[in-house]
Amino acid sequence: DPTSMPYDLNPDFSGPIVNVTVAVGREAILSCAVTDLGHYKVGWMKADDQTILSLHTRVITHNPRISVTHDDDLRVWQLRIRQLKETDGGCYMCQINTNSMKKTLGCIDVQ
Amino acid sequence: DPTSMPYDLNPDFSGPIVNVTVAVGREAILSCAVTDLGHYKVGWMKADDQTILSLHTRVITHNPRISVTHDDDLRVWQLRIRQLKETDGGCYMCQINTNSMKKTLGCIDVQ
Repeated sequence: DPTSMPYDLNPDFSGPIVNVTVAVGREAILSCAVTDLGHYKVGWMKADDQTILSLHTRVITHNPRISVTHDDDLRVWQLRIRQLKETDGGCYMCQINTNSMKKTLGCIDVQ
Repeated sequence: DPTSMPYDLNPDFSGPIVNVTVAVGREAILSCAVTDLGHYKVGWMKADDQTILSLHTRVITHNPRISVTHDDDLRVWQLRIRQLKETDGGCYMCQINTNSMKKTLGCIDVQ
């Protein structure tokens, strides 16, 4: 029901995702900061091949090196990729499932 | 028994998605046919803007015109868009969340 309380919120990103440079084998972490998420959900995707990696607190891909964490206030959503491979390099999309979808990108440079 | 060794399965598409031509205001339906899904999940996305529309049986977007249906055997996953608008035209991705993600596209031509 779009008129009920949680969806009166207008979630958005509170800043850009900071790009990271990480060595092969280490863990890369991208942090997506959101405001007023309410009952909307945050998804992470790999931008170049459109793979859905996670949705809210759940990892969707069966890639075992991927995890997601968030703080108690649901303001920072972290995508974590362990045992980084060169093929993990590239940009990742943090997406909010509003009717007009909102997105922002952060990139991993694998060294 | 698909419940005992679900991840030994190798799901795939059993054929292409048939493109459709639908008049403005009518309902467009794209059907994604999969084999051996097991406990993997099917997602629908709008290909050009990478919006996650649905994941398995749940609609993710807050677009109220979108729904998903599937048959009891989990072999055909339908994306339905009611009250079609011109902006709904374009291609949609049906995605299976295997470690190496599998995808296929179907397109809606809005008349």
